[in-house]
Amino acid sequence: MREQRPRKNDNDRRPERRFDRGFEQREENENQLEGRNALTEALKSGRTIDKVFIASGEIDRGLQKLAAEAKEAGAVVVTVDRRKLDMMSQSHSHQGIIALAAAREYYSIDDILETANERGEAPLIVICDELSDPHNLGAILRSAECAGAHGVIIPKRRSVGLTAVVAKASAGAIEYMKVCKVTNIVAAMEELKSKGVWIFGTAAEGSIPMYQADLKGPAALVIGSEGDGMTRLVRQNCDVTVHIPMKGNITSLNASAAASILLYEAVRQRG
Amino acid sequence: MREQRPRKNDNDRRPERRFDRGFEQREENENQLEGRNALTEALKSGRTIDKVFIASGEIDRGLQKLAAEAKEAGAVVVTVDRRKLDMMSQSHSHQGIIALAAAREYYSIDDILETANERGEAPLIVICDELSDPHNLGAILRSAECAGAHGVIIPKRRSVGLTAVVAKASAGAIEYMKVCKVTNIVAAMEELKSKGVWIFGTAAEGSIPMYQADLKGPAALVIGSEGDGMTRLVRQNCDVTVHIPMKGNITSLNASAAASILLYEAVRQRG
Repeated sequence: MREQRPRKNDNDRRPERRFDRGFEQREENENQLEGRNALTEALKSGRTIDKVFIASGEIDRGLQKLAAEAKEAGAVVVTVDRRKLDMMSQSHSHQGIIALAAAREYYSIDDILETANERGEAPLIVICDELSDPHNLGAILRSAECAGAHGVIIPKRRSVGLTAVVAKASAGAIEYMKVCKVTNIVAAMEELKSKGVWIFGTAAEGSIPMYQADLKGPAALVIGSEGDGMTRLVRQNCDVTVHIPMKGNITSLNASAAASILLYEAVRQRG
Repeated sequence: MREQRPRKNDNDRRPERRFDRGFEQREENENQLEGRNALTEALKSGRTIDKVFIASGEIDRGLQKLAAEAKEAGAVVVTVDRRKLDMMSQSHSHQGIIALAAAREYYSIDDILETANERGEAPLIVICDELSDPHNLGAILRSAECAGAHGVIIPKRRSVGLTAVVAKASAGAIEYMKVCKVTNIVAAMEELKSKGVWIFGTAAEGSIPMYQADLKGPAALVIGSEGDGMTRLVRQNCDVTVHIPMKGNITSLNASAAASILLYEAVRQRG
């Protein structure tokens, strides 16, 4: 899924370079869940779990209970050496348990709007424009879920996908939040606009402070990439651009902090 | 600085365990700055830089300019093989440059209150109760700086210190934000109270929603640890406990997201 960048020379193989871009070092399996919380939330949300690996030798009560629940829900549970889990692990914090879930389901924009409709609420959506750090995407999913947002839209390319690291950083929110993966963010914005959703871009030089933006109606909040903010085309297609007031020397917030602050401004206005 | 936990058995040496707690794997040097942004912000803030290591072979204009600035500010600049930087690196994303700065200065509670006084503002302070994840502490420093807070208080023990990972996650905010390291968080809260600062604890079961808390006056916001929230004694010593409304299935926000949201509620009220 992830775009391969052309490799210029051997330097590009150095792990530091990749970390700088926030990309993971290897292709990750979106359906591998790691750690107790990830599996607990997946089971709670009714997601199909195919197989569960638990570390022999350090099975405590919690792990036993969780394995039993997974089994009851139809999963095959196997006990393996902890080293096998270490090898499989993508997040490097599997806490003695890794589960393989059925392929993650993605949603459409209509699914997201329908969710809002069912809840009798004005749609509240987050659009992530080329986020590359899985911790940021995970944290945004978590804050979006906490704020009662109806969906998160991410692009297919130039963006981290729903990997184990994202799942873990989302603290389980990934199982509840409807994520829509689109080929073209601008086209998705046009679709949302045609369905009555206002698009609020966020940028340091946004034209109004966020407190003046009316987030009570149908709203989609666009969060730009960590390094460069929103791309030009995305920015041009926003209905309004807003800024979060900066009171210090640093000129920008972390992408997930910005998303959290904006989402809770919407919660306040809707309160 | 970091408290050594008693080691029960060999399992405790496994890196996953440590990651789970969010602690770094080895003792980190608080005065090692990694990456261009970290050094740029340190120089801008006037922090003394003793030595700068830059990677030979990939010195571009930006690196050259930065090295020249450091030299002018009194630092010794040496060119080394990139592998040496890889070995020295704590954050694993040094971007070709590592600097050794003079020992980081910590501030007192009076320094923080004096800063607020100088700016003619009611004090706005964040108290971090036993945060263990350096990314969270870094993100809180960043959001605090952006929100115009006057200082951040952390405990000496059971908390991550101001390491290179924290510095990097703070995106330079660590150079501007006054950080006070205290032996006893409850004693620090008492001191703040005696000086007219109200202590707002944050907890899922906090007695009022944050929008009803009056954050216009002198205020300290207490953020609990990632796993367990505020410790009992800290909670008992808050003047008020507030909660951030939770609209979804997940019951808690990430610590740095919660801090960001609260800080910007204070910005809104003070606006």
